Amino acid sequence: MARFLKKRTLKLGQPPGTLVHIGDKKLDDVAVTVYHYNTTVYEERTLSTVEECASFRDCKEVAWIDVNGLHNTDVLRSIGESFEIHDLTLEDILNTDQRPKVEEYDSYLYISVKMLDFLPDGKIGVEQVSIVLKDNVVISFQENVGDIFNSVREDLRKARGRIRRESADYMAYTLLDRIVDHYFVLMEDLGDRVEALEDSMIEHPPATIGRQINDLKREILVLRRSVWPMREVMNILVRADSRFIRPSTGMFMQDVYDHIIHVIETLEIFRELLSGTLDVYLTSAGNRLNEVMKVLTIIATIFIPLTFIVGVYGMNFHYMPELAWRWGYPATWVVMLSVAGGLIFFFKRKGWI
Amino acid sequence: MARFLKKRTLKLGQPPGTLVHIGDKKLDDVAVTVYHYNTTVYEERTLSTVEECASFRDCKEVAWIDVNGLHNTDVLRSIGESFEIHDLTLEDILNTDQRPKVEEYDSYLYISVKMLDFLPDGKIGVEQVSIVLKDNVVISFQENVGDIFNSVREDLRKARGRIRRESADYMAYTLLDRIVDHYFVLMEDLGDRVEALEDSMIEHPPATIGRQINDLKREILVLRRSVWPMREVMNILVRADSRFIRPSTGMFMQDVYDHIIHVIETLEIFRELLSGTLDVYLTSAGNRLNEVMKVLTIIATIFIPLTFIVGVYGMNFHYMPELAWRWGYPATWVVMLSVAGGLIFFFKRKGWI
Amino acid sequence: MARFLKKRTLKLGQPPGTLVHIGDKKLDDVAVTVYHYNTTVYEERTLSTVEECASFRDCKEVAWIDVNGLHNTDVLRSIGESFEIHDLTLEDILNTDQRPKVEEYDSYLYISVKMLDFLPDGKIGVEQVSIVLKDNVVISFQENVGDIFNSVREDLRKARGRIRRESADYMAYTLLDRIVDHYFVLMEDLGDRVEALEDSMIEHPPATIGRQINDLKREILVLRRSVWPMREVMNILVRADSRFIRPSTGMFMQDVYDHIIHVIETLEIFRELLSGTLDVYLTSAGNRLNEVMKVLTIIATIFIPLTFIVGVYGMNFHYMPELAWRWGYPATWVVMLSVAGGLIFFFKRKGWI
Amino acid sequence: MARFLKKRTLKLGQPPGTLVHIGDKKLDDVAVTVYHYNTTVYEERTLSTVEECASFRDCKEVAWIDVNGLHNTDVLRSIGESFEIHDLTLEDILNTDQRPKVEEYDSYLYISVKMLDFLPDGKIGVEQVSIVLKDNVVISFQENVGDIFNSVREDLRKARGRIRRESADYMAYTLLDRIVDHYFVLMEDLGDRVEALEDSMIEHPPATIGRQINDLKREILVLRRSVWPMREVMNILVRADSRFIRPSTGMFMQDVYDHIIHVIETLEIFRELLSGTLDVYLTSAGNRLNEVMKVLTIIATIFIPLTFIVGVYGMNFHYMPELAWRWGYPATWVVMLSVAGGLIFFFKRKGWI
Amino acid sequence: MARFLKKRTLKLGQPPGTLVHIGDKKLDDVAVTVYHYNTTVYEERTLSTVEECASFRDCKEVAWIDVNGLHNTDVLRSIGESFEIHDLTLEDILNTDQRPKVEEYDSYLYISVKMLDFLPDGKIGVEQVSIVLKDNVVISFQENVGDIFNSVREDLRKARGRIRRESADYMAYTLLDRIVDHYFVLMEDLGDRVEALEDSMIEHPPATIGRQINDLKREILVLRRSVWPMREVMNILVRADSRFIRPSTGMFMQDVYDHIIHVIETLEIFRELLSGTLDVYLTSAGNRLNEVMKVLTIIATIFIPLTFIVGVYGMNFHYMPELAWRWGYPATWVVMLSVAGGLIFFFKRKGWI
Repeated sequence: MARFLKKRTLKLGQPPGTLVHIGDKKLDDVAVTVYHYNTTVYEERTLSTVEECASFRDCKEVAWIDVNGLHNTDVLRSIGESFEIHDLTLEDILNTDQRPKVEEYDSYLYISVKMLDFLPDGKIGVEQVSIVLKDNVVISFQENVGDIFNSVREDLRKARGRIRRESADYMAYTLLDRIVDHYFVLMEDLGDRVEALEDSMIEHPPATIGRQINDLKREILVLRRSVWPMREVMNILVRADSRFIRPSTGMFMQDVYDHIIHVIETLEIFRELLSGTLDVYLTSAGNRLNEVMKVLTIIATIFIPLTFIVGVYGMNFHYMPELAWRWGYPATWVVMLSVAGGLIFFFKRKGWI
Repeated sequence: MARFLKKRTLKLGQPPGTLVHIGDKKLDDVAVTVYHYNTTVYEERTLSTVEECASFRDCKEVAWIDVNGLHNTDVLRSIGESFEIHDLTLEDILNTDQRPKVEEYDSYLYISVKMLDFLPDGKIGVEQVSIVLKDNVVISFQENVGDIFNSVREDLRKARGRIRRESADYMAYTLLDRIVDHYFVLMEDLGDRVEALEDSMIEHPPATIGRQINDLKREILVLRRSVWPMREVMNILVRADSRFIRPSTGMFMQDVYDHIIHVIETLEIFRELLSGTLDVYLTSAGNRLNEVMKVLTIIATIFIPLTFIVGVYGMNFHYMPELAWRWGYPATWVVMLSVAGGLIFFFKRKGWI
Repeated sequence: MARFLKKRTLKLGQPPGTLVHIGDKKLDDVAVTVYHYNTTVYEERTLSTVEECASFRDCKEVAWIDVNGLHNTDVLRSIGESFEIHDLTLEDILNTDQRPKVEEYDSYLYISVKMLDFLPDGKIGVEQVSIVLKDNVVISFQENVGDIFNSVREDLRKARGRIRRESADYMAYTLLDRIVDHYFVLMEDLGDRVEALEDSMIEHPPATIGRQINDLKREILVLRRSVWPMREVMNILVRADSRFIRPSTGMFMQDVYDHIIHVIETLEIFRELLSGTLDVYLTSAGNRLNEVMKVLTIIATIFIPLTFIVGVYGMNFHYMPELAWRWGYPATWVVMLSVAGGLIFFFKRKGWI
Repeated sequence: MARFLKKRTLKLGQPPGTLVHIGDKKLDDVAVTVYHYNTTVYEERTLSTVEECASFRDCKEVAWIDVNGLHNTDVLRSIGESFEIHDLTLEDILNTDQRPKVEEYDSYLYISVKMLDFLPDGKIGVEQVSIVLKDNVVISFQENVGDIFNSVREDLRKARGRIRRESADYMAYTLLDRIVDHYFVLMEDLGDRVEALEDSMIEHPPATIGRQINDLKREILVLRRSVWPMREVMNILVRADSRFIRPSTGMFMQDVYDHIIHVIETLEIFRELLSGTLDVYLTSAGNRLNEVMKVLTIIATIFIPLTFIVGVYGMNFHYMPELAWRWGYPATWVVMLSVAGGLIFFFKRKGWI
Repeated sequence: MARFLKKRTLKLGQPPGTLVHIGDKKLDDVAVTVYHYNTTVYEERTLSTVEECASFRDCKEVAWIDVNGLHNTDVLRSIGESFEIHDLTLEDILNTDQRPKVEEYDSYLYISVKMLDFLPDGKIGVEQVSIVLKDNVVISFQENVGDIFNSVREDLRKARGRIRRESADYMAYTLLDRIVDHYFVLMEDLGDRVEALEDSMIEHPPATIGRQINDLKREILVLRRSVWPMREVMNILVRADSRFIRPSTGMFMQDVYDHIIHVIETLEIFRELLSGTLDVYLTSAGNRLNEVMKVLTIIATIFIPLTFIVGVYGMNFHYMPELAWRWGYPATWVVMLSVAGGLIFFFKRKGWI
C-alpha cells in the first residue's frame, strides 16, 4: 500500500508547521548546486554550505538552485529563511505524499509535481519535485539525484535552445517540460505491455491473465494519480495571471498542458483496452468450458445407455430367455447401434455436434 | 443499518426548533471545559455550571469552550442563550446524523464535521463534532470525550507551535486539522487490509473473499460519506470571504482542504483496487473450475467407452463367438488401448491436456 | 408500470389548459378546510362551498386552505379563479404524474412535491402535494386526506412552536418539512430491509435473493425519482430571491434542503450496499458450485477407473489366464487400491482436496 | 443500422449549400396547406403552386404553412426564397438525420425536432419536423402527412382553447406540445413491455430473455437519442430571450420542457429496470444450474461407489472366497446401504440436500 | 499500440522548439501547391522551391497553400519563416501524435485536426491535418496526399458553390467540413459491421464473438479519440470571437459542430449496442450450457441407478436366491422401469424436462 499512501504517523498530533520528512531517505547527503546564467554568463557551483545560496537571492542573472535530498530538515529550514518561504510550503516540500499543486504566495510561486520513472523491479517509482519560482531564482527540490534534468544542464552548458536567453519562469517551464516528457517513456512501456497482453490472448491466454491485467491496472492507477492533478496545475499556470509567469512563457506552459491531456486520454484508453481484454478472455474461457461440456455430454450420454444394456445381459438370472436365443447377441448390437445413432442424430439436430 | 441512518422517529411530527438528541448517549455527564489564553496568559477551567461560560463571551483573550456530551439538552439550550446561537444550529448540534456543513450566521460561523476512529470491534466509528466560531470564542461540541484533541491541549499548555499567538479562527483550524489528520490513521489501516487481501489472492484465495471485499467496501462507504462533504466544507472555509476567518488562517485551511482531497482520491483508489481484486478472484476461480472440468472430462470420456467394451464381453449370451476365440481377450485389450490412445490424442490436439 | 408512468391518454390531443385529472380518484368528496390564524386568533373551518374561500383572499391573518381530493375539476377551477391561479398551474395540480418543481408567478409561488408513504401492501405509495403560496395565504392540494399534516394542525391548535407567530411562507415551510421528515420513516424501513437481506446472506442465502435485491432496487428507484428533483426545488427556495420567501424563512428552508441531501446520499449508499450484496451472493454461489464440482470430480474420477478394472475381470472370455491365477483376485485389489491412492495423491498435490 | 445513421453518401464532396434530401421518400407529392387565422378570421387553403405562399409573408393575421413531403427540393428552394431562409437552414430541413436543435437567424427562428410514432412492425419510427418561426408566420416541414397535428387543425377550426387568440409563437408551441405529448404514448407502450418482461420472469423466464431485453434497450436508445437533445432545445426556448418568443409563451414552453425532463427520467428508469431484470435472470439461471448440478452430483456420487462394489463381485476369478460365503450376498447389501447412507449423511451435513 | 501512442523517444531531452517529425514518413517528396483565387481570378501552381510561397503572403486574393508531406523539416522551417509561424506551432505541425486543438496567435489561427480514412487492411488510419489561417492565406499541412480535398479542388476550378466568392476563413471551413463529412463514411462502415455482428447473433453466434466485439470497440476508441476533442475545437471556432473568423463563416462552423456532435452521439450508441450484444451473447451462451447440463443430468441420473441394479444381479455369489426365481428377470425389469418412470416424473415436476 506504500505506493498509494505513505506513513505519516510520525507527524500525527504535531502542531502545524513542524517540519518532518514524510518519505524514504534516498540519499546520504543533501547536495545543493547552483546554476547561475544569462545570455553571456554561465557559472555552475556545488555549494558546501547552505548559507551560500542566500547570495543568489537578489542577483540580476537567473539562478537555478538544484536541491537533491530532503531528509535533512535543517538544510531546508535554512533555505526557507534565505528566500522567505512560508512554513506551510516547507512542510509541503517535505511531505512527499501529496497531490501535485500550485500555490501563489506574495514573493514566490510554489509548484509541486510528480516525477515518474521505472524502479529496478520494473514498477513505476514516484518522486516528488517541488519548484519555488521567484523573480530571478528557481529552486527545485528532489528526493533523489535525478538524471531527467541532466539534459537541462547540458542545454545550459552548451547554450542550446533559448534557455539562456529567457528568464526564470522559462527555467521553471523547462523543468516541468522534461518531467512531463518523461511520462511518455512510461506510457510507451505501458502501451507495449498492454499490446503484449492482447497478443497473448490470440494465441494461448495464460491462466494468470486476470492477475496480469490487474497489475497493469495498478500501474495505470499509480500514473493516473500523479498525472490527473497535473492537469489542474498546468491549467492554473496557463490561465491564471500570476505575476511570476510572463505571457510568452504561458504559451509554452500551454504546450505542457496539452501533453498532460494527451497522457490522461491515453491512460483512459489503456484502461478501456484492458477491460476489453478481460471481456474477451472471459467470453473465450466461457466458450472453452462450453465446448468441453459438450464433448463430455455427448460421450457420456451415448455410452451410459449402452453400458446399461450390456449390464442387463450380464445378469445371472436362471430364466433369461434372450440369452438362449440364437440371434440374441447380434440383436443386442443392433439395438445398441440404433440407440447410439438415435442419440447422435438428436444431438446433431440440437446443433451440439 | 444504524451506521448509515440513525433513528429519528422520536423527532417525527415535532415542530421545528424542538431540541431532541438524535444519537446514542455515550457519556454520563456533560463536561464543559474552558481554555482561556493569549500569548502570555493561559488558564484551563472545568466549569461546574453552564452559566459560568457566559462570562467568556466578551473576553479579549481567546476562549475555547470544549463541550463533551450532548444528551443533556438543557446544557445546550443554556449555552445557546449565552452565545446567541440560533435554534436551527442547536438542532443541528444535537442531530448527530447529518452531513458535514458550514453555515454563516450574523454573529458566528457554524461548522459541523465528522470525527472518525476505530471502535473496539475494529469497525469505524463516526462521531459528530460541531464547532461554533465567534470573534474570540470557539465552542466545540462532541458526543464523547475525544483523545484526538489531547494534542491540542498539550500545544496550548506548552505554548508549542503558533497556537497561543493566533486568534480564535486559528483554534478552529487546529481542531479541524487534528480531525482530518486522524483520517490518515484509518486510511493506513484500510490500506493495510486491502493489501493483505491482495496478498492472500496470490497464495490461496479464501472462499470468503467476496464477503471480505464487501466488508472493506462498506468501511470505505462509511469513510466516504463522512469525508466527501468535508471537501465542500473546507472549500467554503478557504474561498468564502467569511469575516470570521482571517486571510492568513485561510492559507492554513487550504492545507486541510488538500488533505481532504488526498483522502478522497485514496479512497477512490482503494475502491478500484478492491474491484480489481474481485475481478482477479472471479477469473482465477473460473480458471480453476475449467481445469477441474477438464480433468473430469478426460478421465470420464476415456473410461466410459472402455467400461462399455468390457461390459459387452461380460454378457451371458449363449452364442457369443468372440468369447471362444483364442485371442479374444488380448484383442479386446488391443481395442481398448487403441480407443484410449485415440481419445488422448484427440484431447491433446484440442489442447485440453 | 403504473408506478413509473401514469396513463395520460385521456389528455392526448386536448388543447393546453384543458383541466383533466391524471391519477386515481382516491376520495369520494373534495374537502376544503381553512385554518385561519395569527398569534392571537385561531379559527378552523370546513367549507361547504368552494366560493367561501375567496373571502380569505385579502385577510390580514394567515390562512391555510387545505384541499383534499383532486378529481372534481370544478372545485379547482373555482379556487383558481378566486386566487388568480394560472391555467398551467391548475393543470399541474391535476396532473399528479409530474416532477417536483417550483415556479414563480406574478402573484404566487407554486411548489409541487411528492408525499411518500407505505401502501397497505408494503410498497411505497407516491402522492402529489401542490402548494400555492401567496402573501398571506397558503393553499395545499392533496389527492388524499393525509395524516402527515395532522401534527401541523395540532401545532396550530395548541400554538406549539413558532408557527402561529410566523407568516404564510413559514406555513409553507412547515408543510414541506413534515413531508420530508416523513421520508426518513421510509428510509429507515428500507434500511432495515437491506440489512435483513445482508444478514440472510451470512446464514443461508435464499434462492430468491436476486429478485429480492431487485425489488428493493425498485423501491429505491421510486424514492429516488421523487426525492432527486426535490433537491432542485429546495435549492431554488433557499437561494432564489423570491419575494414570497422571507430571508428568515430561507434559513429554515436550508434545513429541509440538508435533509433532502441526506436522503439522496443514503439512497445512493443503499444502492451500493445492494449491488455489493449481489456481488457477495454471486461469488459465494460460484464458490459453492466449485466445491460441488470438486466432490463430483474426485468421487467420479476415483471410481470410474476402478469400475473399469472390475469390468475387465467380469468378462466371460474362455481364455483369460488371470482368472485362474491363485492370487488374481487379491492382486486386482492391490492394483485398484494403488490406482485410487495415486489419484488421491494427485488431487491432493493439485490442492483440490 | 439505418435507424441510427442514415446514408449521406450522396452528399459527400458536394459544396456546402447543395440541397440534397437525406432520408426516405415517403410521399408521392409535396402538399402545402396554409391555415390563416386570427380571433375572428379563419381560412384553410391547400396551395396548388408553392409561389402562392409568398403572399402570406407580410399578412397581419397568423399563418401556419404546413409542408408535407421533403423529397422535392425545388419546392423547398422556392419557399426558402419567399421567406428569406438561409441555405444552411434549408439543408438542415432536408437532412432528416440530424440532432434536434434550435437556431436563431436575423429574420426567423429555426427549430428542428423529432416526431416519434410506431411503425406498422411495432418498432419506433422517427420523423423529423422542422419549424420556421417568423413574426406572423409558422412554417412546419414534415416528411410525411402526420395525424399528430390533426388535433391542432381541429382546435383551429373549432376555435378551441386559446390558439386563435394567440400569435405565431403560440402556434409553434402548440406543434411542439403535440409532438412531445405523443412521446408519452410510446413511453406507455414501452412501460407495458418492460412490465410484461418482468412478469414473465416470475413465472417462467423465456430462453430468449437476453434478446428481448436487448430489443427493448434498443428502442430506448432510439427514443433517448431523439429526446435528449430536446432538453437543450426546450431549455433555449424557455430561457433565451429570443425576440420571436414572447414571455407569456415562454411559460408554456416551460411546460413542454418539464414534459421532456419527465420522459428522459422515465427512460433512465426503464433502463435501470431492464438491467435489474437481466441481473435477476442471470442469478436465477445460475441458481437453477446449481440445483441441477447438485442433483447430478448426489445421484452420481451415491451410485458410482455402489456400482463399483457390485462390479467387484461380478468378476469371474476362480478363487474369490467371498462368493462362496453363505452371507456374502446379504453382507454386500449391508455394505452398500452403509456407503449410501454415509454419503447421504455427508451431503446433508454439507447442506447440499 | 502504435495506433494509440507514437514513439516520441527521438525527441526526449531536446530543448523545446527543436523540430523533429514524430510519425511515419509517408511520401518521398514534400509537395507544395498553391491555389490562388478570387471571384474572377483562378490560378493553381505547384511550387518547385518553398521560398516561392512567400510571395503569396500579402496578396489581395485568397491563397490556399497545400503542403503534402512533413518529414522534411527544412521545408517547414522555411514556410514558418515566410509566414511568421511560432516555433511551437511548427513543432505541433510535425508532432502528428497530438490532440486536435485550436490556438490563436497574433498573426494567425492554428487549427489541428484528424483526418480519418480506411487503411488497406480495413483498419482506420489517422492522419493529422494542420491548418494555419491568416488574413488572406490558408496553409494546410498533411502527411500524405489526401484525396479527401480533391472535391475542394474541383469546386475551386469549376467555381462551384460559394467558395470562390468567400474569403480565407471560408476556405478553412471548407477543409474542416470535408474532413468531418468523411467521418460519416467510416461511421456507416462501422454501423454496418455492428449490424452484421448483431445479425450473426440471431442465427449462430461465432465462437470468436468476444474478439470481434473487442475489435469493433477498438475501432470506436480510435474514432472517439480523434473526434471527441474536435467538439472543443469547433466550439471554440463557433463561439470565440477570433478576428480570423467572420460571423457569417461562424454560422457554417456551427454546421460542422453539429456534425461532430452527431458523430459523437452515434459512437456512444455503437458502444451501447456492442455491450448489449455482448450481454445477449453471454446470456444465450449461459442458456445453452444450462440446456446441455440438463440433458446430461437427466440421462445420467436415469441410467446410473439402473446400471447399478443390473450390476447387482451380475454378481457371482453362490447364494443369491433372486437369481433362481422364475419371475426374477421380469421383476427386475419392472423395478427398473418404475425407477426410470419415477425419476422422469420427478424431473417433470421440477420443470427440468
